[in-house]
Amino acid sequence: MKKYKRIQRVGALMKIFSERPNQIFSYNYFSELFNAAKSTISEDIVIVKELVEEMSYGRIETITGALGGAIFIPYISKEETESILDSLCKSFSQKNRIIPGGFIYMTDLFNNPNVVNNIAKIISSKFVNKKIDYIVTVETKGIPLAIMTGQKLNVPVAVIRRNNKVTEGATVSINYVSGSSNTIQTMSLSRRSLNENSKVLIMDDFMKGGGTAKGMCDMMNEFNAEVVGTAVVVETKEPEKKLVDNYFSLLLLEGMNEKEGTINISPNIKLLQ
Amino acid sequence: MKKYKRIQRVGALMKIFSERPNQIFSYNYFSELFNAAKSTISEDIVIVKELVEEMSYGRIETITGALGGAIFIPYISKEETESILDSLCKSFSQKNRIIPGGFIYMTDLFNNPNVVNNIAKIISSKFVNKKIDYIVTVETKGIPLAIMTGQKLNVPVAVIRRNNKVTEGATVSINYVSGSSNTIQTMSLSRRSLNENSKVLIMDDFMKGGGTAKGMCDMMNEFNAEVVGTAVVVETKEPEKKLVDNYFSLLLLEGMNEKEGTINISPNIKLLQ
Repeated sequence: MKKYKRIQRVGALMKIFSERPNQIFSYNYFSELFNAAKSTISEDIVIVKELVEEMSYGRIETITGALGGAIFIPYISKEETESILDSLCKSFSQKNRIIPGGFIYMTDLFNNPNVVNNIAKIISSKFVNKKIDYIVTVETKGIPLAIMTGQKLNVPVAVIRRNNKVTEGATVSINYVSGSSNTIQTMSLSRRSLNENSKVLIMDDFMKGGGTAKGMCDMMNEFNAEVVGTAVVVETKEPEKKLVDNYFSLLLLEGMNEKEGTINISPNIKLLQ
Repeated sequence: MKKYKRIQRVGALMKIFSERPNQIFSYNYFSELFNAAKSTISEDIVIVKELVEEMSYGRIETITGALGGAIFIPYISKEETESILDSLCKSFSQKNRIIPGGFIYMTDLFNNPNVVNNIAKIISSKFVNKKIDYIVTVETKGIPLAIMTGQKLNVPVAVIRRNNKVTEGATVSINYVSGSSNTIQTMSLSRRSLNENSKVLIMDDFMKGGGTAKGMCDMMNEFNAEVVGTAVVVETKEPEKKLVDNYFSLLLLEGMNEKEGTINISPNIKLLQ
């Protein structure tokens, strides 16, 4: 069987940890994978531990005992958060984004893996020390974000649908008032998609009045789930009072000038404090 | 400024390449990041190159010249493909998945980041040597898969909607016949979501008659886009003749026994040849 050099094992460990953050890997697993003694793996992990700290990538935690292993918990520095938020502001305020009706076209950004990955980095880092069982979102535009954040936190996603689907089995449906348009809408979630008494992180792309987020919270009540937090990418400045409290946004949309085509959007400075 | 050891730079390089496969990074970028001479980076890259080959992770290609850089092109071995397909078959055929009407509940799997990541690994590896500009899917269940495959191929995603949305700007809508239910349905795609004359990879979670995939191909005609391939996760054995030709699936659903609750699903053996 192949033997690997230390530098190769360390490189491979970084790949494995980066692709599955917040996942425990046992020393046995690495030992078999690299055909190396557990004591050797232990030494490798010490090097990886120093590496991720020196590079400000996060931290490696090791669990001792028979079920011993290591887990990579990523971290994002204030500088990186700031640089991501700045670049998001530039992207979201590009001039040609205003569409008839005073809406802003953002779909391309929410479907761009690199943009979404950056957003997920910031949001997941706020919740690494909290127990989360599921990420919950409502279709459609928040789904890429939810799955990438789910990957980083190593938890599954539950997607609330706007309509009942035959392929979802038994569902729970609720009506909610869209805060901005004042219309009554329906959302449904498959009974199978969420265990009772779970802790959830709610995510969405955009928040105006907060009616959708409120609806998702109400839905969580039906599943006896605890909402640990709510994260949205863009919130509008007006109305200042939203229908939910415990939430945070990455970007604040202060307004736009349809005639001049300018969009006024700024980073949430609380994330940089 | 900090200096790093070679083993640390190699570890960091593996993290960077793994998180952004199919993305060119310039030697200048690494040189600044690690505060090291370009000649040193060159030597590091040689080590990484050997590493990814020895570990069967894929290959590193280097581009020489003023705009020189390196790119990681992941690869999946036959053994890993087989092991992923086996584990998918087990998951998709779990007994409690049959729901009234003869449907199979699969949503949890399509919303599980680890499952989706494994599926995306297989699909993306089939297209690494082809030029793809966009991944195209139709809402809702294929979206996580599309974004993760997009991340691996380093291309954006375009999501076809079932309904017209005000936030999408000008859209192109088409009607299509759902092959299995024989009903006429509508799909729309924002004009802004796709450049004309693009090369696209179409993805979906499930294919029975192929009507939806055919609809997506027709939609691509409206954008003068070339469909390079179509990938679905599960296809049904019946009807054997689908409405599209140039497609492949990961799993073949041969049938189920509602009474006994058993599902008969097998890997696409063509992927293992």
